[in-house]
Amino acid sequence: MSSAKLTINLESLVQNWRALNALSSTQTGAVVKADGYGLGADIVGRALLREGVQSFFVATALEGKTLRDALGGGPNIYVFSGHMEGDTGAIRNGALTPMLNSTNQLLRHLETLPGHLFGIQLDTGMNRLGMEPNEWFAVRDIAIGQRPALIISHLACADIADHPMNISQLETFQMMTNGLDIPRSLAATGGILLGKAYHFEMTRPGIGLYGGMPFADTLPVVSLDLPIIQVRNVLSGETVGYGNSWFATCDSKIATVSGGYADGIIRAMGPNTSLYAGDTACPIVGRISMDLITADITNLSETPDSLQLLGKRQTVETVASAAGTIGYEILTSLGQRYYRSIIE
Amino acid sequence: MSSAKLTINLESLVQNWRALNALSSTQTGAVVKADGYGLGADIVGRALLREGVQSFFVATALEGKTLRDALGGGPNIYVFSGHMEGDTGAIRNGALTPMLNSTNQLLRHLETLPGHLFGIQLDTGMNRLGMEPNEWFAVRDIAIGQRPALIISHLACADIADHPMNISQLETFQMMTNGLDIPRSLAATGGILLGKAYHFEMTRPGIGLYGGMPFADTLPVVSLDLPIIQVRNVLSGETVGYGNSWFATCDSKIATVSGGYADGIIRAMGPNTSLYAGDTACPIVGRISMDLITADITNLSETPDSLQLLGKRQTVETVASAAGTIGYEILTSLGQRYYRSIIE
Repeated sequence: MSSAKLTINLESLVQNWRALNALSSTQTGAVVKADGYGLGADIVGRALLREGVQSFFVATALEGKTLRDALGGGPNIYVFSGHMEGDTGAIRNGALTPMLNSTNQLLRHLETLPGHLFGIQLDTGMNRLGMEPNEWFAVRDIAIGQRPALIISHLACADIADHPMNISQLETFQMMTNGLDIPRSLAATGGILLGKAYHFEMTRPGIGLYGGMPFADTLPVVSLDLPIIQVRNVLSGETVGYGNSWFATCDSKIATVSGGYADGIIRAMGPNTSLYAGDTACPIVGRISMDLITADITNLSETPDSLQLLGKRQTVETVASAAGTIGYEILTSLGQRYYRSIIE
Repeated sequence: MSSAKLTINLESLVQNWRALNALSSTQTGAVVKADGYGLGADIVGRALLREGVQSFFVATALEGKTLRDALGGGPNIYVFSGHMEGDTGAIRNGALTPMLNSTNQLLRHLETLPGHLFGIQLDTGMNRLGMEPNEWFAVRDIAIGQRPALIISHLACADIADHPMNISQLETFQMMTNGLDIPRSLAATGGILLGKAYHFEMTRPGIGLYGGMPFADTLPVVSLDLPIIQVRNVLSGETVGYGNSWFATCDSKIATVSGGYADGIIRAMGPNTSLYAGDTACPIVGRISMDLITADITNLSETPDSLQLLGKRQTVETVASAAGTIGYEILTSLGQRYYRSIIE
C-alpha cells in the first residue's frame, strides 16, 4: 500500500503512565492535548481511562468537547486555555473544567455558567498563562468562595533539574496557595522528576507518556514505516531530487519511499537522517519532498518492502535533533495520511 | 473562542487556477495531493471542479479514493505513486488512474486490473519516481498497446528558470515519448512558467494555486488569526516562556495567543517572526510552545481580539523563510485544530 504505516503501541503508553505514576507521590493525571500529542486523543484517552486515569488535560475547549465525546461522562477534563468568549457551549455540554487564567475569564465564567466546575491557573514566572500574584490576591477570596476544583501552575525550565527557575516557581506557587484547602498541581513530566516537593495533590505527565524526554526511562510508543515505491540504480555523478542538491559519488542504489514533509517528516531533518532496514542505516539523499523521500540502500543485500524512520533503531529524540527541534514537535507533527495500526 | 481561525479563500484559489490556465497553452489540471496542500482536498477539489477542472492529481491511492468520494464520478484522478501492492481495491473502487512507475507496477496493474485506466510516469533525470529510458524502452510496446491515458514526468529544478536541468529533462522526455499518440504532461507550476515547450497536452499546477512561489502573481489563499487568551505586563528583566530564553529589555506588554507548533506553526520560525495587529508587527518572544505563542504588543494602543500570522501583511513565503523552509511546508503543516472558515 502506498500509505506509510504509523504503529501506536498503547501498551507502552500505559507502561509509561505506570512508571510516572510510580514516581508521583500523589494522584496522577494525563495531558492529552494536541490530539494526544499527535497519536489520537480518543485512543490515548480510552487506554488511560481503562488504566484508571481520572484527570485529563487539553489545550482548548473544542479539544475538551471532542475528548468528552470519546470518553463519556466520568473523568475530569481540564482546559488550559480556560474560558474564552465563544467557549461557553462547549464547556457546558462537555462538562469541562476550564482553568481560568485571568480576572476576565473568572468573571465570564461566573456570569455565564454559575455553579459550573472550574479551576484556576496561576503564573509563577513563566509569563505565559495564568494570574500573577497581584491579580490573584485581588480576586482570591471571590475565587475560593466559588470552590475551584484545582489550582495549577506550569514550570518553564523543569527539564533542567538544577535550573534556579524551578525552586523560584515552587516558592511562588506555595506563597500564592499555601493554606488554601484546594487541590493543587504544578508538575508535568519534568516536574515529577524534580521530586516530591513539586507533586502537591496531582501530577500531570505529558511528553513522558509518549516516549519523549526528559523522562529517560520512557518507552517508545510510535514506530513509522515508509513503503518503498521504487528502487533504481544511479551512476556516479547522477543527481537525485529537487534542486539537484545531492549527487552520487559512486554507483548507488536509491529507494523512493512514500512519506514526506506533508506527513510531518520535517523537511529540515533530511541531511542528518537515515531510514533503517533492520539495523542498517540508509541515509536520506536529496531533499525531502512533499510525499516522497529518497534513501541510499546501496549497502542492503535485499530490498525490503519498507524503510523505518521511527522505531527501535531511531527514537523520536534522535529525529528531533536531526531536525533541530524537540521530540514534542516530531510527535505533534505526525501526519493524517498514515495508515494507523494500534497495538493494545 | 480558544481555537485559532484559518480562513480559506476559494475565490482566490480559483483565480489562481484561471491565471495559470491562461498561461498554459493546453489543458490545465490541478494537483490536490497532501489533502489539497493542507487546505482540504474535498473543498479545493469541488471548487476547481465547478470551474471546469477535469484532471486531479494525488499522491496515494487512499487520497484518490477519498477525493473520488468527495467529487463523485466524472473527473479523472491520477495517482503519482502508481499501483502498489494493497492499492488495487482503492484504484478499482475509486476509478483512479495510477501513474505506473516501474515494470513491476505495470505488470501488477495489467494482472490485477486488466482493462482499467492507467498512466505512465517516466524519470527524466530527477531519479525519484518513474521509469528510466532503458526500462521504458524495454516495456514501451507492451505499455502503449494497453493505451495509457497519460504519460508524465516531473521537473527537478523548474523554479530556477535558467537551470540547465530543465532543458535536459525536456529533451529526455521528448526522446522517450515523441511519436507516441498519447497525451503527455511535464509541467507543474514552475514548468508552466518555463513556456509553451514544456506544456504538451496537459499542465498540472500545484503550489501556484495555493498562494506559493514560484508563480509571482499568485494570490494568497489562506489567512490565519490566533485569538489572544491573555495579556500581561512584564517588567524589564523578566523572562517569558520555556527555558527563560527571552527576557524583557524594558517594561513590556505580552499577549499569549492560542496556536503553537502542534498547529503546524513550525517551532523554528519563532525568533524571526512577528504576528500582526493590522499593520503593526508584534514580534514573537520566547519559544513557540505546543499550543501557545507569546508576542510583544507593547506598541499597540488597544488590545485586539486576535493577532494574525498569515494574511495581507505576511505571506506563506515570508513565514517559510523565517522557518528556514519553503512555502509548501508551511501549507501542508497547517493544523487540524483550527476553526476553518471558507470564503466561496
